[in-house]
Amino acid sequence: MKLDSYVNGQWAAPGRDLVEVRSAVTGDVVAEATSGGLDMHSVLAYARNVGGKNLRKLTFHQRADLLKKLAQYLTERKDQLYKLSFQTGATRTDNLIDVDGGIGTLFVYAGKGRRELPNSTFLLDGAVEPMGKGGTFAGQHIVTSLHGAAVHINAFNFPCWGLLEKLAPALLAGVPVVSKPATVTSYVAHALARMIAESGILPEGAFQFVVGSTGDLFDHLTCQDVVSFTGSADTSEKLQRHPVIAREAVRFIAERDSLNAAILAPDAKPGTPEFDLFVKEVAKEMTVKAGQKCTAIRRALAPSASVEAVIDALRERLAKVAIGNPELETVRMGPVVGLDQRRDVLAHVKTLRTEAQLVAGDPDNFDIQGADVTRGAFLPPLLLHCADPIRATNVHSVEAFGPVCTVMGYGDLEQAIALTNRGGGSLVASVYTHDPKVASELVFGVGSFHGRLVMIDRDCAKEQTGHGSPMPQMVHGGPGRAGGGEELGGVRSVHHYMQRTALQGSPAMLTGITGSWMKGASVIEKDRHPFRFHFEDLDVGQTFYSKERTITLEDIEHFAHFTGDTFYAHMDEEATKGHPFFPGRVAHGYLLLSFAAGLFVDPDPGPVLANYGLDSLRFIKPIQPGETIKVRLTAKEKIPRNKQYGEVRWDVEILTDKDESAATYELLTMNAVRPQA
Amino acid sequence: MKLDSYVNGQWAAPGRDLVEVRSAVTGDVVAEATSGGLDMHSVLAYARNVGGKNLRKLTFHQRADLLKKLAQYLTERKDQLYKLSFQTGATRTDNLIDVDGGIGTLFVYAGKGRRELPNSTFLLDGAVEPMGKGGTFAGQHIVTSLHGAAVHINAFNFPCWGLLEKLAPALLAGVPVVSKPATVTSYVAHALARMIAESGILPEGAFQFVVGSTGDLFDHLTCQDVVSFTGSADTSEKLQRHPVIAREAVRFIAERDSLNAAILAPDAKPGTPEFDLFVKEVAKEMTVKAGQKCTAIRRALAPSASVEAVIDALRERLAKVAIGNPELETVRMGPVVGLDQRRDVLAHVKTLRTEAQLVAGDPDNFDIQGADVTRGAFLPPLLLHCADPIRATNVHSVEAFGPVCTVMGYGDLEQAIALTNRGGGSLVASVYTHDPKVASELVFGVGSFHGRLVMIDRDCAKEQTGHGSPMPQMVHGGPGRAGGGEELGGVRSVHHYMQRTALQGSPAMLTGITGSWMKGASVIEKDRHPFRFHFEDLDVGQTFYSKERTITLEDIEHFAHFTGDTFYAHMDEEATKGHPFFPGRVAHGYLLLSFAAGLFVDPDPGPVLANYGLDSLRFIKPIQPGETIKVRLTAKEKIPRNKQYGEVRWDVEILTDKDESAATYELLTMNAVRPQA
Repeated sequence: MKLDSYVNGQWAAPGRDLVEVRSAVTGDVVAEATSGGLDMHSVLAYARNVGGKNLRKLTFHQRADLLKKLAQYLTERKDQLYKLSFQTGATRTDNLIDVDGGIGTLFVYAGKGRRELPNSTFLLDGAVEPMGKGGTFAGQHIVTSLHGAAVHINAFNFPCWGLLEKLAPALLAGVPVVSKPATVTSYVAHALARMIAESGILPEGAFQFVVGSTGDLFDHLTCQDVVSFTGSADTSEKLQRHPVIAREAVRFIAERDSLNAAILAPDAKPGTPEFDLFVKEVAKEMTVKAGQKCTAIRRALAPSASVEAVIDALRERLAKVAIGNPELETVRMGPVVGLDQRRDVLAHVKTLRTEAQLVAGDPDNFDIQGADVTRGAFLPPLLLHCADPIRATNVHSVEAFGPVCTVMGYGDLEQAIALTNRGGGSLVASVYTHDPKVASELVFGVGSFHGRLVMIDRDCAKEQTGHGSPMPQMVHGGPGRAGGGEELGGVRSVHHYMQRTALQGSPAMLTGITGSWMKGASVIEKDRHPFRFHFEDLDVGQTFYSKERTITLEDIEHFAHFTGDTFYAHMDEEATKGHPFFPGRVAHGYLLLSFAAGLFVDPDPGPVLANYGLDSLRFIKPIQPGETIKVRLTAKEKIPRNKQYGEVRWDVEILTDKDESAATYELLTMNAVRPQA
Repeated sequence: MKLDSYVNGQWAAPGRDLVEVRSAVTGDVVAEATSGGLDMHSVLAYARNVGGKNLRKLTFHQRADLLKKLAQYLTERKDQLYKLSFQTGATRTDNLIDVDGGIGTLFVYAGKGRRELPNSTFLLDGAVEPMGKGGTFAGQHIVTSLHGAAVHINAFNFPCWGLLEKLAPALLAGVPVVSKPATVTSYVAHALARMIAESGILPEGAFQFVVGSTGDLFDHLTCQDVVSFTGSADTSEKLQRHPVIAREAVRFIAERDSLNAAILAPDAKPGTPEFDLFVKEVAKEMTVKAGQKCTAIRRALAPSASVEAVIDALRERLAKVAIGNPELETVRMGPVVGLDQRRDVLAHVKTLRTEAQLVAGDPDNFDIQGADVTRGAFLPPLLLHCADPIRATNVHSVEAFGPVCTVMGYGDLEQAIALTNRGGGSLVASVYTHDPKVASELVFGVGSFHGRLVMIDRDCAKEQTGHGSPMPQMVHGGPGRAGGGEELGGVRSVHHYMQRTALQGSPAMLTGITGSWMKGASVIEKDRHPFRFHFEDLDVGQTFYSKERTITLEDIEHFAHFTGDTFYAHMDEEATKGHPFFPGRVAHGYLLLSFAAGLFVDPDPGPVLANYGLDSLRFIKPIQPGETIKVRLTAKEKIPRNKQYGEVRWDVEILTDKDESAATYELLTMNAVRPQA
């Protein structure tokens, strides 16, 4: 099968210079790939001029809904992807990670987009910054979609997950995607791309798929584009140093080689659940995906006294791993992705063996099931032991991207930290301890060298998601050798495709631009209470000024006895003497809040359905018996929800009759939309 | 004077290869600079091993206090800096921007560090992410200080502000600084560095100062270091493409050339206040600092019909600018920084004149006061007009870094947006309009190409801080040609020197590491109410379970009449029929809150001084008459404040007697520390 590219809204036949892609299991040719002949300038132009414009018309919620629909569409068709994936060497379990993991990421982004992003096309970032005593000038940061393309260059190991985990945040951000699979597993990514295109769910231009090399694509990048790369350090460095990247300051996100560590803590002695969890996790990370995971454990650190026990336990566990044709249900580990990859892994193992001893696995002698060892790219799990990890360098820097791991001993925690950080920046490390103090010391010792840290102990053993599994909610990526990039992490990665801009202007102007009322902007008073307006009819800035109410000592005592809140500061003048905040007996904060509601609530049925919450309440000035309060209530933000109602956020201030601020908060109501005629 | 470097805690005499630094005003040699002979590896090692370790022992608040002390120390000595700065060509006004602006930035970071960062050594980032139905595994992002050095490479134009605005966020983040000034104004930066060193305020190793070239410093960078560069695009690109940057994924922040635009909107016709503000701002940006500001207006866009009026008004205004010796009080504009710079500016003006006509200013014929025009680097303001900005390219890409600006006309707003974005990414643009709709269209059209946008109109005219002034509260930096970096923006830039790490583990483990209690972690019950514990004695996780209280119809009616909150949902069963959220009459949210306080408050005087606020209140399940509630109150976080008291954040849940969640919120109290014996 010749793999075509999906560009400019149509499938483009592959050009010349076809490359044969072979099955990892049988060595047979399964596809032919190339990108020869594609006009990369037009690919980017189509993304920007068609895809970007279409996506930017949608709100975050609408984009989230597209992701959900796409996830549902793919779920119904995932068996086709499983089937093709077997040829890459992936087992059934590996497929769950790649295919289901990828679809699951779409679902998570759909959910987070709905829950954590507004139903609009831009974001407010941080608080209003007042910038002048007169209150006529202020600042507010906003975040808007880039006007370029997201260029996604994926690794071979997760053709589905890799494509989808990069796709979801970009689309949610309103930025169209140009996705390029790794050639060796491009037939799986191609099948996925075909589904995405055929679904018709995404707006025109939002997704393009380029098989083969990127050609001269980098020459056409601008500051509005984002490159997100997953793969080897060599390729990554080469791409990052492309002159256009620095010249145009193109955002470049890299996720590459990583010598991830698992750290068995001193308290996790043989016989403890944490020791067993460590052994289990190391073995799992060596064999899942035949160890071809950027997050796999490459260095297993154990207290020197436990090293022998670790090796014994791992040797025993690894010996039981059934290797062979991944389609067989009994098989736990398939081949690596191809014969070239097998050669690379063995070459790297050779380098590692200059500093470490092979203690389990023999690449020249192992059993396989249901496949021809001379044709498939099979390898057994290879465990090494490095006796002098302090002087060693290769074990901390050479990534054998296959079922390979090196055990090394450490003296004390300080040494464990130093050895772990010798990785020069990693995607992830896992820590096996039941002692939070030990965990804490390790976390703050290695934290700045890592994108993710997993604490595995008996308490979370059943539910923990694994050392090697990036979760869509948590950031994935790490400093230094790991590439310095960051992906996923929920809505954090949506920001990678958006620009933060500082806006400065008068409060009225900023309110007009952002749709979020800020103090100092003019308020709007109408003939009716703002609670009398349906969601669409309410204007941001609409304000209600309440009548006044004097708070008596009787009110305070009555409230105290009614609620049971007889805190001395409300009840006993004598006891408040010398109090650092209270000048004498004061009204309860909740009394102020309750009276404020009494002052601003409009009792009859109307568009305001409920007060469902309250944010950022601060009591500023204590109110003493005999003082008088009043309330200002201003519509601050409107957040559309559905066809029945929307959320309104109100800026509320409780003031004294001398206009001193007694309390400020944000009130949240659910407001009905206008009934349909 | 030979300028020495401050490295490894001492002043190192300059090596050979001295470079003469000359006065911009007189052309006399004022200093000699070099960094020959410095061992850059040891400079970085000293920063990491001494400075970083010392800074990381301090909390954010302690670091903020150092910044404040330093700002106060420098304030007392700023006259010395003014005096030296005159030689760079800076006028008195320019000095206010450079010297006072720099010190002001320290003050702002001191204040923000105290107010917006916790009194601890790391940050929590975002919410807890539950990661399993059983509640035994969760995620929480933390942010910790990098273990490397902040390498600051500054531009010549703001020797004080540049040094200090980069210093403040790095030190606040706990990262030591190696600061390198631009040679041509290094004598001013040197005087500032000497003050910083002599003050003895910063911990050992926190600050080093390298005069001259960076030598082989880049060869020794790691993933824990950050380079922050301000200067020309050429140098920036060269540095960014250094092989170590990509290999070690060193963070590289660049702030460089920018063809910033000022946009006169169609409503701002001649005669409007906005037209006058536009003319005033363009003239100001051309002449302040003799136009040597990366944020200066290089392109003045006006509706085609207004171009002539704009040119006339600017010509008139610029003719009044007194040029000469900046020490004279009458002088409004000094020379550019040196004769080389003057040559560069004139060469760039020549390039611009291939597309634009010089309409004001003659470089060969202008008056100066109190200086010798043949020795100083003087230039008059040079205004150009480009008649065909759509076909032109130089006016959008060539930055004449001096008192130079090009006026260009546009047809409609869409064209104004397209022309503005032709800058290929800019630090800032300013918009002159009194119409929020027009502002909005421009903001969302050019936003993703800009780091900052200023709306200038009659409302903010008096207080607006200016097109060209980066404020410490707002981000400074822009995409593309502007370098793609981001500085300032309050605590945002503190994050540039820190690493975000995803932490995963059991709630108990995460609570143990972060010191922030999360749901699912075990709770601690002691023999006394948690309100009976002084700040130091209270444990995170300490919990109080209240008694139950049944809410009667009488309670609801009584509360309604007492407070005045007679909202129908509390009063009228019939009116709630068909309500989307309420199953019938329900208790007021504020009633629940008040009764909850009655259930958990411990009335007698004790360590809890006050409830000063409440966050994130959400009413989850409406409570009907006859239902019973109870409260769980758990100490979630402790935030030390001062010697008298600290803040405690409590996780509160109002539950029904069937353990359904009715409301959740975070309660804030101020708790006394244990009285000194």
